[in-house]
Amino acid sequence: MTYRIAIFGSSGYAGGELIRLVDGHPDLDVAYLGAHTAAGRSLGSVHPHLRDGDRMLGPNDPASSPPIDLAFLALPHGASAEPAMALLDRGTKVVDLGSDFRLDTESRYEEAYGVPHPYPEQLGRWVYGLPELHRDAIATTDRVASPGCYPTSAILPLAPLIARGLIEPTGIVVDSMSGVSGAGRGVSAALQFGAVDESAKAYKVLKHRHQPEMGRALDDVSASPVNLIFTPHLVPMQRGILTTIYASASGDVTGDDVATALDDAYSDEPFVAIVEGSPETRWVVGSNRALISVHFDGRSGTAVLVSAIDNLIKGASGQAVQAANIMLGLAETAGLPMEGWMP
Amino acid sequence: MTYRIAIFGSSGYAGGELIRLVDGHPDLDVAYLGAHTAAGRSLGSVHPHLRDGDRMLGPNDPASSPPIDLAFLALPHGASAEPAMALLDRGTKVVDLGSDFRLDTESRYEEAYGVPHPYPEQLGRWVYGLPELHRDAIATTDRVASPGCYPTSAILPLAPLIARGLIEPTGIVVDSMSGVSGAGRGVSAALQFGAVDESAKAYKVLKHRHQPEMGRALDDVSASPVNLIFTPHLVPMQRGILTTIYASASGDVTGDDVATALDDAYSDEPFVAIVEGSPETRWVVGSNRALISVHFDGRSGTAVLVSAIDNLIKGASGQAVQAANIMLGLAETAGLPMEGWMP
Amino acid sequence: MTYRIAIFGSSGYAGGELIRLVDGHPDLDVAYLGAHTAAGRSLGSVHPHLRDGDRMLGPNDPASSPPIDLAFLALPHGASAEPAMALLDRGTKVVDLGSDFRLDTESRYEEAYGVPHPYPEQLGRWVYGLPELHRDAIATTDRVASPGCYPTSAILPLAPLIARGLIEPTGIVVDSMSGVSGAGRGVSAALQFGAVDESAKAYKVLKHRHQPEMGRALDDVSASPVNLIFTPHLVPMQRGILTTIYASASGDVTGDDVATALDDAYSDEPFVAIVEGSPETRWVVGSNRALISVHFDGRSGTAVLVSAIDNLIKGASGQAVQAANIMLGLAETAGLPMEGWMP
Amino acid sequence: MTYRIAIFGSSGYAGGELIRLVDGHPDLDVAYLGAHTAAGRSLGSVHPHLRDGDRMLGPNDPASSPPIDLAFLALPHGASAEPAMALLDRGTKVVDLGSDFRLDTESRYEEAYGVPHPYPEQLGRWVYGLPELHRDAIATTDRVASPGCYPTSAILPLAPLIARGLIEPTGIVVDSMSGVSGAGRGVSAALQFGAVDESAKAYKVLKHRHQPEMGRALDDVSASPVNLIFTPHLVPMQRGILTTIYASASGDVTGDDVATALDDAYSDEPFVAIVEGSPETRWVVGSNRALISVHFDGRSGTAVLVSAIDNLIKGASGQAVQAANIMLGLAETAGLPMEGWMP
Repeated sequence: MTYRIAIFGSSGYAGGELIRLVDGHPDLDVAYLGAHTAAGRSLGSVHPHLRDGDRMLGPNDPASSPPIDLAFLALPHGASAEPAMALLDRGTKVVDLGSDFRLDTESRYEEAYGVPHPYPEQLGRWVYGLPELHRDAIATTDRVASPGCYPTSAILPLAPLIARGLIEPTGIVVDSMSGVSGAGRGVSAALQFGAVDESAKAYKVLKHRHQPEMGRALDDVSASPVNLIFTPHLVPMQRGILTTIYASASGDVTGDDVATALDDAYSDEPFVAIVEGSPETRWVVGSNRALISVHFDGRSGTAVLVSAIDNLIKGASGQAVQAANIMLGLAETAGLPMEGWMP
Repeated sequence: MTYRIAIFGSSGYAGGELIRLVDGHPDLDVAYLGAHTAAGRSLGSVHPHLRDGDRMLGPNDPASSPPIDLAFLALPHGASAEPAMALLDRGTKVVDLGSDFRLDTESRYEEAYGVPHPYPEQLGRWVYGLPELHRDAIATTDRVASPGCYPTSAILPLAPLIARGLIEPTGIVVDSMSGVSGAGRGVSAALQFGAVDESAKAYKVLKHRHQPEMGRALDDVSASPVNLIFTPHLVPMQRGILTTIYASASGDVTGDDVATALDDAYSDEPFVAIVEGSPETRWVVGSNRALISVHFDGRSGTAVLVSAIDNLIKGASGQAVQAANIMLGLAETAGLPMEGWMP
Repeated sequence: MTYRIAIFGSSGYAGGELIRLVDGHPDLDVAYLGAHTAAGRSLGSVHPHLRDGDRMLGPNDPASSPPIDLAFLALPHGASAEPAMALLDRGTKVVDLGSDFRLDTESRYEEAYGVPHPYPEQLGRWVYGLPELHRDAIATTDRVASPGCYPTSAILPLAPLIARGLIEPTGIVVDSMSGVSGAGRGVSAALQFGAVDESAKAYKVLKHRHQPEMGRALDDVSASPVNLIFTPHLVPMQRGILTTIYASASGDVTGDDVATALDDAYSDEPFVAIVEGSPETRWVVGSNRALISVHFDGRSGTAVLVSAIDNLIKGASGQAVQAANIMLGLAETAGLPMEGWMP
Repeated sequence: MTYRIAIFGSSGYAGGELIRLVDGHPDLDVAYLGAHTAAGRSLGSVHPHLRDGDRMLGPNDPASSPPIDLAFLALPHGASAEPAMALLDRGTKVVDLGSDFRLDTESRYEEAYGVPHPYPEQLGRWVYGLPELHRDAIATTDRVASPGCYPTSAILPLAPLIARGLIEPTGIVVDSMSGVSGAGRGVSAALQFGAVDESAKAYKVLKHRHQPEMGRALDDVSASPVNLIFTPHLVPMQRGILTTIYASASGDVTGDDVATALDDAYSDEPFVAIVEGSPETRWVVGSNRALISVHFDGRSGTAVLVSAIDNLIKGASGQAVQAANIMLGLAETAGLPMEGWMP
């Protein structure tokens, strides 16, 4: 059986990757492509790297779509809530790649976004779609809030350690660098080649909305409130996130304890691997894999964790397909690349 | 039925892409991986982006391989002849990605390489593996010399025009720029990031060995000897070749005549497309496609042709798999990516 | 004595380089900085790499400037004519980096730009500011049209050969690749990092306005009309132009003849050098130098010339300062970098 | 008066920048260029971006140099000690860009490098050449150990805060990313374009030798021992270091206290500026400036500091010239670029 898929917000980078992944998926078919300003244009004019360029993009309106089994929403912040509600009403499963339903309480949402949520009763009803943590809940829901790219890179290394009480939940430093595609395909002076190439910068220092998302997801597994500082950096590459995390070990926890906990947590996971040395983003770009390395400073009792993902795949479209696979009862790895590309 | 494949020279860039393509191919299985200095190492230590990193690399010696149906040779120039002969003796089909068997006469070979060919009787017995030109011959041979990357980008636009007599076979200018992976994975000062990044250069001006290869392949379809000048350039990117070609139209040939000829030649080809405007390499990087645009300067009667390919896929490993598919009686597109990746 | 300088269009890339060069010039002082949308902003907010960030930008209006000795205009096409006339009326010398006054006849201008020139009587009264060709005329004029970046890279190698009748003036191919800064600092989807990085493309094939500019400048030194085809390419780097030129040798002209002519033409020039091998753009980025190499295909009698410049310095701001030095009676090399930066 | 300068290790990146800076310096002249494997070659063949390419490189042996006033040593680790001693014996002032004399005790040295120092009595006799901290000591010594690139980026923001007791000296996290030139010009597989471009990685996690150098320099200004963790990252760009630092505020220290302390420390420094927002490396690449931004998380009492330098200028050759200026009684800013280059 093949499931029919709609992709809303198909003109952006995450949308393009969703099309590519669904086109190559043995059990999914693209039934509808929605877009905002690109509605009415051909796929080939929007994504010239994708085949069947004659396919047309329609509006980002569920009413324009033929009946589908599942919809991916790759829309700007704030634009997901309305179509999500309409789709759920029609009995369509929804995987939202946006941030509208990632936080679980009205207060967290207002703190992060400064405005009330339009559907506050929905908060807490959506499953946070990190399969490695919430596989069972994903399998039985019709609505998944797919995690952000930076949170994915931070939660995977941290959650098992916090859950087991191996590191202190406070004073954690999450220092990330991302390729430019993480900022989306919108046009701006700050994202011109002339402004990005051969430069590195921090941005939104102490103000990035992924920090509360990390806090929420880690609080879920923690005995006491998690407190962390997150700094994102932009570096001149297209894809990939490298995250370096600093956390204080609890009591007399050793480096071996930390390494063992992560090995235990992920040894059966198809998409997560603990590596010797430390990972490079090129090792994962193009695949749905997350690589993690563990380091320990015995003098200060500090665990240093390094993780690498492709922000558009494990950090966005691949992870969304992974959740969809689970929701639809398919093999979790179906259609998802295990191998990236180098060079 | 699944065919068993060996890849000799599996530690380089083309070798890595062959592994990735065969791993994802529905009808092919990797049965043996050969390498030179990397023999004895695990795949994961050589290509950390590929899964099943525990697979081991053996020597580049056909005797070390289990029985196989077809072998890909991705070896340095001069290293293919001996293992090729040994494999053919064992009844194994061979696709050579190297340049050892691409030229058809002893004199051409000596002119290009300055030394006699070690198996001169083999010259002319190998099929030049450009499926769009030589599909039938590929289907019935056991030995294919897969084209070079620059020649692929030049021959696809030029061959139909020369074959139909629409352009003069002399005075052709082929001006190409390539990403760095075209130079292979060997370590050198000239390929350090510090030497390549933010710079462009021509190299081997009037001396590149792909010029005689282009000449040979085009002579095959030409009524009179082809004479062209080829200049390769290195630009700071990983992959992709963009080739701009200048050729004088014959007699009163028009731009429409040229465009029509190319449309006719490639309208049924799965991997070649004629595009409006002009192609960008990113539109094909990651796929086995070649894109071509046609321009015509009426004042001087000059056809300007622009082509784009991924040097490691349509220019190397993908084209080799395409030929193997034909040799093995599989669908020609089996296991070959039709969609690239952006950004 | 120090001369007072105004820079109109100071917020763009060429404007920024002009400020940097004038700030470091022993005989010039920045007296006024004009800008369009950036008027009213501080220099530091527009060009954070420049010191004295408190300096303010005023409007692009000569009436707002204090009295000055010479003005540089780094304005969009079509915007130079009016302020140029106003400045000349006030007795101010003008170096225009734009293309408004580079062509010499109304018909050429209309052919290139499709509209009549607003001050047709000015055409032909401006000196084309390539010092290596027109030093004496620059010394005695008050109005210089500074050459475009691509034309500079093509005219320097070609002019001596055409002037001496060593190459045929027709059938010349000029194939160039440029870093992104050549497109200016304006914001567009085509110049986003995600669209430019890791890609190469041709653009404006057979339609670039620098082609008529090359034709005009070369006609000036040619016994018969020059006919050439120019193709610009965009490659993923910030700066630098590499131009490869193909021209047929006249009669029995040899490679030595060509090389000798270029050596003779430039042996005394401070900013032009003929090099062994072929130049890389990084060798000139950051300096006002142009490097040229000469190659000759004896079989077809084709001269291949490769040139490299920094598009923002010898191709724009540096060349404009070079002309200003001549106009003001200063040492031609004053304040101009002879050494670039690597890596 | 002009001082005569020798540069030993002139073939590397830092050496090339030293030549460029000294060539452009009003009071210094290059009198000798030493090199190891490049000895006997012309400058132009080693650094094609530098003028006077006919200058020859001699051996890295002080005995081969004519009499000089000051020598810069830009040699690999361990290679500085012997020529430094020979030069000092001849009465020549020495600025060592290497790490041989940066640590102050035998035990620190052995801890960092695993071997005893060859001239242990020299440790502690060299001045750590960070002018902003040790200007007076530099003015009166004949031997300066010029700081490493990462330490410069970390010590400038941290030293004033530690000296004033505003932050805790323990638990400090220093997270840095560097362009590739920081690894030097040596050829290796890890620094090939194919390995570096489009990738980010951490390296030498918990093992980089700049960590003890930072500790030593900060201990000098601290009331109690400084304990920090330093992680360097490699990102795909030529130049620039961006360092993000996390430190706990002491007692009830506020963000204003931190900002005021840094303003006070650097308001009169020509090469250090505190900026609004946060700095980008492109703002300093090409200049000798260091930019710092200050952020404060009131909830956790954490100061976040971001700094940007050009690793080859303020992080190496520029800082060495700055120290030389002080040692020779010249203006501290003489010959040092205040403005970088963009784009």
